[in-house]
Amino acid sequence: MASYLVTGSSRGLGLALVSRLASLPKSEVARIIATARQDNSSQLKEIVSASSGRVEFVKLDVTDKASVEEAIKSVEQKLQGKGLDYLINNAGVMDSSKNGLEGMDNLNEIFNTNVTAVHLVSQAFLPLLRKGQKKVVINISTTLGSIATAKVYAQGRCPAYKISKAALNMLNVQYAQDYAEEGFTFLAVSPGWLRTDLGSSYADLPVETGAEKVIDIVQKATPEQNGKFVNIHVPGWEEAEGNNQYPGGEVPW
Amino acid sequence: MASYLVTGSSRGLGLALVSRLASLPKSEVARIIATARQDNSSQLKEIVSASSGRVEFVKLDVTDKASVEEAIKSVEQKLQGKGLDYLINNAGVMDSSKNGLEGMDNLNEIFNTNVTAVHLVSQAFLPLLRKGQKKVVINISTTLGSIATAKVYAQGRCPAYKISKAALNMLNVQYAQDYAEEGFTFLAVSPGWLRTDLGSSYADLPVETGAEKVIDIVQKATPEQNGKFVNIHVPGWEEAEGNNQYPGGEVPW
Repeated sequence: MASYLVTGSSRGLGLALVSRLASLPKSEVARIIATARQDNSSQLKEIVSASSGRVEFVKLDVTDKASVEEAIKSVEQKLQGKGLDYLINNAGVMDSSKNGLEGMDNLNEIFNTNVTAVHLVSQAFLPLLRKGQKKVVINISTTLGSIATAKVYAQGRCPAYKISKAALNMLNVQYAQDYAEEGFTFLAVSPGWLRTDLGSSYADLPVETGAEKVIDIVQKATPEQNGKFVNIHVPGWEEAEGNNQYPGGEVPW
Repeated sequence: MASYLVTGSSRGLGLALVSRLASLPKSEVARIIATARQDNSSQLKEIVSASSGRVEFVKLDVTDKASVEEAIKSVEQKLQGKGLDYLINNAGVMDSSKNGLEGMDNLNEIFNTNVTAVHLVSQAFLPLLRKGQKKVVINISTTLGSIATAKVYAQGRCPAYKISKAALNMLNVQYAQDYAEEGFTFLAVSPGWLRTDLGSSYADLPVETGAEKVIDIVQKATPEQNGKFVNIHVPGWEEAEGNNQYPGGEVPW
């Protein structure tokens, strides 16, 4: 009978995460709060309508403190005194710079959305999470944020995205340290290279596959994993000629 | 006959780096450009005065694009058509948050100074560095920015500093990738926990030791090290009961 909140759920992975959660039995997923900056996603509206009240929309701009505070009030009302079990910090942005670092003029902006906003939202939802049964916070990261394996992604022209996600991984570890004693599990998850607006149509996997694999990880998360950075496991990639991007397990920092 | 530019040299490690460079023979260190936000450091003034023109001050606020552009013009004049050999991105700030993440309200500001400003300065000085003989850029990092060894520093209440330095390490790797073909060496260096305003009087090492060890690393830097994150080596710490903070070599990400 767990409750979930997903940020950035108007499209892409966020929308697919909400869709996946809504497809699971009510005994597992009792309540889904789908948040986004704007309420204009027809796909999200359809999921909300078809859910018989299980999926609810709350407006939330993760970069705007006032919006976060408004959202908290709204979520509190919806939860009717209960806590929140799972927070999925999914909202994020990617830069695209053909000239690499020479063209990188948006580092602060990307960092603010991908890291500082995660901090803002996590702090704001801590009281509700403390009242929850699970105390799980998922930070959607990426293997492109792995400094140790940066060589593999050298051709990816999104330096601000990579830098911000490395920082997010450290934020995740800092949260894990500060809230371990309270029984929290903070987990950074790489959802794979997915066919979304952010990932492009050239990506490895359908967004539904990424969402399914991420929700598997979310539901199995335990305090022993607190602070870790994990990858999805997609069978079939073992044969990808030394390029198994989805082996599961931990991602090197 | 190499030329060096150090940012943040009015005090702390930056001042000690300039002092150390000025103590080396002119055959090794021909010219030192000491930069800082303000020109009010009496200690730096003394070094400049005693240097017979070898150490020159240039005003540079690393977070201010206009200031960086002004500084470039001034440095170009001083170099009289020659290139710059070594850029040491030392200027940086640390947060202090007794309440850990709960009190972290300056993440964007710390990131801007410790990461975005390094990007701004590095881009701006690239043309002069391309004309230099060495093409070495040193980014002053810290083992506190190592995600892999974060557990060791869990008691250090400076989450924004740690997060920003993990991001700086990724910035360093991105620069290393983008400019490797041109013969550049980008190196992230942890200078040790030093007795400075930033490091406090409780720190492990005198600032002069850190500066000496960092300059040793700078002078020995080779393109084979491009993109690495290295520690100083301080003999004597081997016996520190499993707590050898200064073994030299690479720091895990």
